[in-house]
Amino acid sequence: MQPRSIVVRGRPLADGRLPAVCAPLVARSSGELLAETAAVAALQPDLLEWRLDFFGALADTAQVLAAARGLREAARGIPILLTRRSQREGGQAITLDEAQVLALYEAVARSGCVDLLDYEMDNAPGDVARARALASSHGLALVLSFHDFARTPPDAELRARFAQAQALGADVGKVAVMPQDVQDVHRLLGATLEASRTLAIPVVSMAMGGLGAASRICGGVFGSALTFAVGAAPSAPGQMPIADVRAALAVLQRATAAA
Amino acid sequence: MQPRSIVVRGRPLADGRLPAVCAPLVARSSGELLAETAAVAALQPDLLEWRLDFFGALADTAQVLAAARGLREAARGIPILLTRRSQREGGQAITLDEAQVLALYEAVARSGCVDLLDYEMDNAPGDVARARALASSHGLALVLSFHDFARTPPDAELRARFAQAQALGADVGKVAVMPQDVQDVHRLLGATLEASRTLAIPVVSMAMGGLGAASRICGGVFGSALTFAVGAAPSAPGQMPIADVRAALAVLQRATAAA
Repeated sequence: MQPRSIVVRGRPLADGRLPAVCAPLVARSSGELLAETAAVAALQPDLLEWRLDFFGALADTAQVLAAARGLREAARGIPILLTRRSQREGGQAITLDEAQVLALYEAVARSGCVDLLDYEMDNAPGDVARARALASSHGLALVLSFHDFARTPPDAELRARFAQAQALGADVGKVAVMPQDVQDVHRLLGATLEASRTLAIPVVSMAMGGLGAASRICGGVFGSALTFAVGAAPSAPGQMPIADVRAALAVLQRATAAA
Repeated sequence: MQPRSIVVRGRPLADGRLPAVCAPLVARSSGELLAETAAVAALQPDLLEWRLDFFGALADTAQVLAAARGLREAARGIPILLTRRSQREGGQAITLDEAQVLALYEAVARSGCVDLLDYEMDNAPGDVARARALASSHGLALVLSFHDFARTPPDAELRARFAQAQALGADVGKVAVMPQDVQDVHRLLGATLEASRTLAIPVVSMAMGGLGAASRICGGVFGSALTFAVGAAPSAPGQMPIADVRAALAVLQRATAAA
């Protein structure tokens, strides 16, 4: 089975090139968000991830919606993934409770200003179901994600995480881990390859930190549909500059095409 | 255990950077060899591999020695690996028998014009012992190698090949395979990682062809001490241009150093 592209509003991301490149946006204010988006969009990532947990005025839905509209315009057609990363999984502390987060997701989804939602698969089943339903009702793709910033879980758990994403109705399953040695990086790539061959949805994975750098370059070879790279500022340890990632991916793609 | 550098005449190749980059030389005549070496040395690989089986005048030892002297001078201090790749393991057909090959190895080793010898571990045990002895008596490092251009052997065999190199007295163990799917590339990287951690000698591996490209870029992360890249002309399928390999390795090295 060939690894699958992530499909956004009926079109494969990056015209089907694997992996696609996603740049995070970590601005704290609307003004910063516009400036960051303009700068990052100019680097032409295939996807922008708006990290809502970095945004200061989360409790003011009108301000979030205004920011989303500004983001959409500044993104110049690059699809947008909306992500509230929880503190438990490596995100920023926020004041909203889970019901408020989902209400905010719903409001932004309804605005048509984003194309995908990220939601953590370890949230309460009812909340995951609500995220699934609201993504569907607004035509958005749902990424169900799992992050471990401390370690790389055993193979069986990695396998189970990808399968869990599919079982919960994800359009994309994402697993990010922290390797403690190179063997962990190798195991993550193996689990990703297996999931990409056995599941019906595209999968995304990364080994974070410097030790995991190879997974951000070669992950696509082993079935990961997306790699995260830095436009203006990183959102997780080990992310490399977009230009670096593009250059290394181009080397691999030329070598593969030449054979 | 950290992967080990290949040591050449008491100094770690590439000042200990992993992986080092080796460019093959495949000239058919002395004149071609000088021109090829000058062009390739300008690209500054860490090692040059003189593929003796491509050289036409093998039966004329004086001509081979003259070529070796020209090569040494044109290499501008870059260490030289002497390799007769057998036809059985992907090399060119030659007219010398094994005793003549070893006599030629001895003559070139004695000239001081090369620094390492490659010999296939599947040669007759007596011949392998002779290659070991002649390398030692002239201060050269011995690479014992295994190539499978058709497939990637099972894990147990990959493991056994690296161990066999060490058991036969190699200074470096090299395993090159042809992947039939991405799983084979993943298995080769896993076997390389294991060998680099459990053996006392540096190991080198590559998955050939376009499918194996990731192993030539990320192999160093998984313990391979050397990657082969094209200076003037490739000697095996899947080798990428030196500039491409260097660029991708630099991306990985920056990312690793930044963390």
